[in-house]
Amino acid sequence: MNKYNVARQSVLEAGSLIKNMMQEDIQVDIKSSASDFVTNVDKQVEKFLVDTINNSFPNQNYLTEENTRDFIGLENLWIIDPIDGTTNFVYKKRDFCISLAYYEKGMPVFGLVYDVMNNELFEAKTGNGAFLNGEKLALLDQKRPLSESVISGDVYRPNFFKATPSEIKRQIIAHRFLGSGALEICHVAANMSQAYVFNSLKVWDCAAAVIILTEVGGTFLMGTQVNQLVFDQQGHLFIGAANSLIMKGIETWL
Amino acid sequence: MNKYNVARQSVLEAGSLIKNMMQEDIQVDIKSSASDFVTNVDKQVEKFLVDTINNSFPNQNYLTEENTRDFIGLENLWIIDPIDGTTNFVYKKRDFCISLAYYEKGMPVFGLVYDVMNNELFEAKTGNGAFLNGEKLALLDQKRPLSESVISGDVYRPNFFKATPSEIKRQIIAHRFLGSGALEICHVAANMSQAYVFNSLKVWDCAAAVIILTEVGGTFLMGTQVNQLVFDQQGHLFIGAANSLIMKGIETWL
Repeated sequence: MNKYNVARQSVLEAGSLIKNMMQEDIQVDIKSSASDFVTNVDKQVEKFLVDTINNSFPNQNYLTEENTRDFIGLENLWIIDPIDGTTNFVYKKRDFCISLAYYEKGMPVFGLVYDVMNNELFEAKTGNGAFLNGEKLALLDQKRPLSESVISGDVYRPNFFKATPSEIKRQIIAHRFLGSGALEICHVAANMSQAYVFNSLKVWDCAAAVIILTEVGGTFLMGTQVNQLVFDQQGHLFIGAANSLIMKGIETWL
Repeated sequence: MNKYNVARQSVLEAGSLIKNMMQEDIQVDIKSSASDFVTNVDKQVEKFLVDTINNSFPNQNYLTEENTRDFIGLENLWIIDPIDGTTNFVYKKRDFCISLAYYEKGMPVFGLVYDVMNNELFEAKTGNGAFLNGEKLALLDQKRPLSESVISGDVYRPNFFKATPSEIKRQIIAHRFLGSGALEICHVAANMSQAYVFNSLKVWDCAAAVIILTEVGGTFLMGTQVNQLVFDQQGHLFIGAANSLIMKGIETWL
């Protein structure tokens, strides 16, 4: 099998693994704060994905949330979040996903985002469009204004935007917050909302989803760079939008 | 058939009606503001529900979002929201529901909340527990503190709470916002979050869901009254919580 097929099959198998592990007790560890979790499931699922890829393709690089392997370099780079939306996984038992992306020398090759409990697989290969459960996603309207947009993410997070909640509310239709960056970016790609914003997103939260988003005409800002990932382990300002008109509107809030 | 069975069957049929109408164009009318929609689907689905109930049980009272019948009195009162989460319906094509409740002389008899696209039916008869797709929901933990809670709703809405977003964030695990009050209250009942807050909820948004919530031990505040609906057409402060400990914590934000 080629890399794409191995990736796709292992993501689906990891979804089954998660569902099976949910029948047992989930052990929660605290990371940096009480709302920053990691579970035994995150760790085991990441190990399963890395081992499966490594068995088929040795000598790859990895950049992963649970740091199963050290991050060495950009050649043949697999970027993995075994569970994006761990709070949702622990508390809500839905609205979390597996995110897996493959980049070569910093350039996107393919991305997979699997909403396990909804059984929705978002996938894209660079240059071939994006798909949801095998159906091609439509290109996003490039003329849609901010005033016709639903914005998801932690919109009113303290010290994120200089614009006040009142100022932001006046400019948009509504805000929503699902709590999984990868899924919320994919939902922009699927035209369920028009932008996703977060003050501190990490590369494994968005590496796969931005491939899906840009394949349908969307755009993103990470840190200070447009349509370019930051390949490190830090959190960065992130805005993903259906078009640059909406992006520019959101940037005025900063 | 008795009232419960007629209600349950007509809610499921209304779900099919909505799915069929989604294949056609949805016409959007603006109500009080650009983010306050009503569609042809809301109106037709409400008329279907009222007509179906009226055919089996004449001389009932109705209190409904689209005002198909005038609200006269509390005897044999059906409280209906044909689509709760109209913005989600129009923009996201999911995460909306049908809410139907039946009250006699102001006392709850039964409530049904149907998440159409997820095919999840929440239902409760007073005194008989609450069910999700036929499975009985567990009683909620009455000792769970606010610090172990996910809060949904428009938590940071301007001029809603006196507490700042920073103060609120420190006291909880996370906040989420789905955009359908009825569904978000049912999700508290199903232990997917621990409270739902909104500054201005109307009785048709919560009449069915609060029956489901209180059947599993939850509690709610509407306006100034605990566990008591306000039967009018105005918006009221609403807090629904898994227990009174969490409720009291949220009340300190007011």
